[in-house]
Amino acid sequence: MAAARDLQARLTKPAGSLGALEELSVRLAGLAEVCPPPLPTPATVAVFAGDHGVHAQGVTPWPQEVTAQMVANFVAGGAVVNTFARQAGADVMVVDVGVAIPLHGGATLLDANVRRGTRDLSVGPALTRDEARAAVEVGVGVAAALVESGAKCLLTGDMGIANTTPAAALIAAFTGAGPAAATGRGAGIDDATLERKVEVVGRALALHRPDPADPLGVLAAVGGLEHAALTGFILGAAAHRVPVIIDGVIATSAALAAAAFAPDAVAAMVAGHRSAEPGATVALAHLGLEPLLDLGMRLGEGSGAALALPVVTAAVRVLHEVATFDSAGVSEK
Amino acid sequence: MAAARDLQARLTKPAGSLGALEELSVRLAGLAEVCPPPLPTPATVAVFAGDHGVHAQGVTPWPQEVTAQMVANFVAGGAVVNTFARQAGADVMVVDVGVAIPLHGGATLLDANVRRGTRDLSVGPALTRDEARAAVEVGVGVAAALVESGAKCLLTGDMGIANTTPAAALIAAFTGAGPAAATGRGAGIDDATLERKVEVVGRALALHRPDPADPLGVLAAVGGLEHAALTGFILGAAAHRVPVIIDGVIATSAALAAAAFAPDAVAAMVAGHRSAEPGATVALAHLGLEPLLDLGMRLGEGSGAALALPVVTAAVRVLHEVATFDSAGVSEK
Repeated sequence: MAAARDLQARLTKPAGSLGALEELSVRLAGLAEVCPPPLPTPATVAVFAGDHGVHAQGVTPWPQEVTAQMVANFVAGGAVVNTFARQAGADVMVVDVGVAIPLHGGATLLDANVRRGTRDLSVGPALTRDEARAAVEVGVGVAAALVESGAKCLLTGDMGIANTTPAAALIAAFTGAGPAAATGRGAGIDDATLERKVEVVGRALALHRPDPADPLGVLAAVGGLEHAALTGFILGAAAHRVPVIIDGVIATSAALAAAAFAPDAVAAMVAGHRSAEPGATVALAHLGLEPLLDLGMRLGEGSGAALALPVVTAAVRVLHEVATFDSAGVSEK
Repeated sequence: MAAARDLQARLTKPAGSLGALEELSVRLAGLAEVCPPPLPTPATVAVFAGDHGVHAQGVTPWPQEVTAQMVANFVAGGAVVNTFARQAGADVMVVDVGVAIPLHGGATLLDANVRRGTRDLSVGPALTRDEARAAVEVGVGVAAALVESGAKCLLTGDMGIANTTPAAALIAAFTGAGPAAATGRGAGIDDATLERKVEVVGRALALHRPDPADPLGVLAAVGGLEHAALTGFILGAAAHRVPVIIDGVIATSAALAAAAFAPDAVAAMVAGHRSAEPGATVALAHLGLEPLLDLGMRLGEGSGAALALPVVTAAVRVLHEVATFDSAGVSEK
């Protein structure tokens, strides 16, 4: 990190004039323990998909079948995350960790289904501890496989109708925020549905009283299979000292769980964007992360992470490519 | 624009979930009068370079020779804007519109020098009206040549030691903001220098009393050659209905002049980022533009515009590539 700070000061630009990009380049040098740090290429968005029993509580107007339909859309390359990933030069892989119905995939769909849908967290535990652990291990394994095959940057993605409800419960459990502060409109819901969703989250928290010092217990009580897998994915990236770009509210809820397991994992996290979901901002503040983009997006899928990848790459490329005052013969002030 | 709004509503994502990117795609469809609008590729950053007599007032600690040295750095590909442009797949060309000393360039340096440096705006007019007009026409011509050679997006760049001082004066003149609100620390100055810079801007405004209804007169009184050229460049982009990504405080000051010449030109402007310079925020608010990025950058060169290009491309690509609910067989809510 010191070497990166020193190099930033010698490049042909006023000191500090690249703002947050300079701090990011220093963090990534520290993570990789080398200056300049590796370019975040190749990179892969892993989209973890699952369904949720809490859908039955009427927390979203979208039918549950959309999860599987969107997985097919990802595999066919037709979703927003596919477009943003192509734009950024990243791959997309889809991991079925908890979709309710059997899927017929292609080469980019990994079958790692732990359970055909997370249970309804408002009436009982969402998962057993063993199921939650298995899902975490799916994420750890996906991260390890991607790093082994050469990935220099991992991006979090998610798909799961109703999955902002467990995300809100996780954020409330790990940060202490109230259900109303942690819960948002997800893919877009009316006032009555939002009221019901806040009530469901509050009910789940009262029922399970999750202990933030026991992250596996929190994930089992009020989480979801893709949230648990993302937790493992983030921990896996951090264990390999590879940066992981955190997407929106689902990913930030998993990032809280990852930080509860291993506080040092935060060093590997790059917040891609500030989701319009209020819980994401609560989570980012708790983690001490400033997002790179703030465009009012609230899609998920990994779209905000993929959109941020070129910014991360640019921050690192500066350390690789920009001339120094000495090398370019530019006078200093 | 109506066609783009309609298409956005049919794509496989919740309506509005791409936030500012959806609005941007609608604006660009309106600008191009076609849906989807063209991808902003190929794109070129035009870096207009000039020197400033106001340098003699001690408004910056950087020696004037750095302007020419940095032009050589741009031509050699060693500056931050070169790195960000490579990252975004954009070209960089440098236009000498007002550098104080003769330059020896390469294929990417255009000699369009109107005068070997802008005069000191604090003691007399910065330019004659003819000089200002000639510089505006340089920018118009560069935009026309780039569009004719196939550019689908233009990006503003600038280089000129002391050029944030005329930018502050322009912003004050066009928006009515006071010198203290329009003036910032540029490449980084101490409190005493900032105080002197604000005083210089205030003195220039009192001396010339520029009339915002006469944009050429404002550019001549308190502007600079690269500011005038950027004004023409923006007007040229707008005349060709090609989007122009506005960089930082120099570009936003020129954008105010362009809007004073032709208010409809704002429709072609995409604010790349929010510069840390306070004057840039004053100017963007006056123009009614929301920037895409906000990373605390204050480098200029076109760096913030180049960093924003992938975001603009992503916004447009959504309309080209993302599947509709119908085509992907995804259920709606």
